[in-house]
Amino acid sequence: MIYTVTLNPSIDYVMAVPDYISGATNRAQTTNAYPGGKGINVSRILETNHINNQAWGFLGGYTGAFIATTLQHLAIKTDFTPIQGTTRINVKLKSHQETEINASGPQITDAEWQTFKQQFSKLQPADTVVFSGSLPSTLPHDAYQQLIQLVVSKQANFIIDTTGDDLKQALALHPLLVKPNRDEVQALFELTDISLNSLKIAGQQLIAGGAQQAIISLGGDGALLFANNHVYFADPITGDLQNSVGAGDSMIGGFLAQWTIKEDPVTAFKLGVASATATAFSEDIATQTKIRSVLDHVHITEIG
Amino acid sequence: MIYTVTLNPSIDYVMAVPDYISGATNRAQTTNAYPGGKGINVSRILETNHINNQAWGFLGGYTGAFIATTLQHLAIKTDFTPIQGTTRINVKLKSHQETEINASGPQITDAEWQTFKQQFSKLQPADTVVFSGSLPSTLPHDAYQQLIQLVVSKQANFIIDTTGDDLKQALALHPLLVKPNRDEVQALFELTDISLNSLKIAGQQLIAGGAQQAIISLGGDGALLFANNHVYFADPITGDLQNSVGAGDSMIGGFLAQWTIKEDPVTAFKLGVASATATAFSEDIATQTKIRSVLDHVHITEIG
Repeated sequence: MIYTVTLNPSIDYVMAVPDYISGATNRAQTTNAYPGGKGINVSRILETNHINNQAWGFLGGYTGAFIATTLQHLAIKTDFTPIQGTTRINVKLKSHQETEINASGPQITDAEWQTFKQQFSKLQPADTVVFSGSLPSTLPHDAYQQLIQLVVSKQANFIIDTTGDDLKQALALHPLLVKPNRDEVQALFELTDISLNSLKIAGQQLIAGGAQQAIISLGGDGALLFANNHVYFADPITGDLQNSVGAGDSMIGGFLAQWTIKEDPVTAFKLGVASATATAFSEDIATQTKIRSVLDHVHITEIG
Repeated sequence: MIYTVTLNPSIDYVMAVPDYISGATNRAQTTNAYPGGKGINVSRILETNHINNQAWGFLGGYTGAFIATTLQHLAIKTDFTPIQGTTRINVKLKSHQETEINASGPQITDAEWQTFKQQFSKLQPADTVVFSGSLPSTLPHDAYQQLIQLVVSKQANFIIDTTGDDLKQALALHPLLVKPNRDEVQALFELTDISLNSLKIAGQQLIAGGAQQAIISLGGDGALLFANNHVYFADPITGDLQNSVGAGDSMIGGFLAQWTIKEDPVTAFKLGVASATATAFSEDIATQTKIRSVLDHVHITEIG
């Protein structure tokens, strides 16, 4: 079984405002609310690929109820821990520019945190847990480390999509996959340049640090896979960029969906790249039809 | 009984963003969600003055559920018509400037509109209905006229706080009170100046048109009351402006609260001015304590 973890989910409230003026009263032409959160996005991609999974995390209040109902309509299985607080709403303004206003999210009490951690006792060695996104500020600073220890103690696998110290410390516990993007890798290893050579060395450091596989996503410039002591490059795919939100999560969802069927990193990378690209070319998280249509255009070369 | 009508309520989602930058990813320091809507504000002021009333309108979706629950906690009696659509969220950004982004609101089906109108059959001659705020775009253009006709057919009273043609056409049906602000009066009568004399003539036109009483609110410059063939001026009250949202609704709520006890327009105007000012000096709709503390400072002069 695959479990995705979203500790600070959100409603993403997208407001299209044709001519946004700061300091004035603006009228939105359209508004749409989506269930947001990186782990939830991974679950959606797994689901669209018919891979059984369950989304975990914290939900509370009227916003939490909306997310739960929406995921139910999307046929996503969930087992969120209910909280007293109210799940946040993040606002995305679409005008001449795209502006995000993110909220910090609700307080998680210690009792709620303990309840959440109890779920990990049910893990089996064949399970995989995907950790994605930032921590609510009220959780312990070492929350991810605590959770990963619980996964490891059950001999289960994990994937982690986060940055900085949390990523660094996770490497030693042998994640199935890490997926920093170019900026995150540059910050992590304090790279002075982001040449292909420099990124190749950084990716090899992720593996040397303990990751079983590593992907460095390059946005519109393709992606790198480090696996089996080799380096692979996925060519960028041209198309109409609709939405970069969720592309990284789709990379992980696609990789894991294929990995679950056959543990071959290059084939898994291929579905990851197709899924990430399909989401970037869609308004929302990609559908299976869209992913399949992109898959034929994925071209992977061994480069080291 | 008093009924307030809010046809297009909202959640007002207030996001404090210390240094808002358009085109970037911003982080809100605090976020707060309030039940918004002009009729709802009137109900809150009536309730805080212990005047029995019930809020009517349309509510739907998770946002509608939040408003219903919040009003219940505030002890506001409601009888909203449930709708298939989802009640809107309006965003108020507080940074160096204050910016509003309002949504247009859900679709109201014809069946929902008919259900709503059926409530008016229960009106009694001693009842008052307060109509406040804009119409959802999917309602018939003459929605207010239809509703006012229902009120009049039951020999009940009504107050209307709206603008333009809806206000003009309502006058002939003798509203208990109309309350345009200076800008609205200027637009309504195409005034070339907003001198006291010009506004006095405009107020007398509201009465000549059919209004039983009229208030022209001047924001921070006081307010004018037209009643019993006299004109009264309420001096502006100095204080720390916190929030102009809901001040006009509080004027109506305060006026009606006192009118219900004793049908004297000047005393009613006094509580109206105190309530409006108290709300302007509060973060949210004013409490009774705040209104009482402002009431001593209200000074009204007959000026014509």
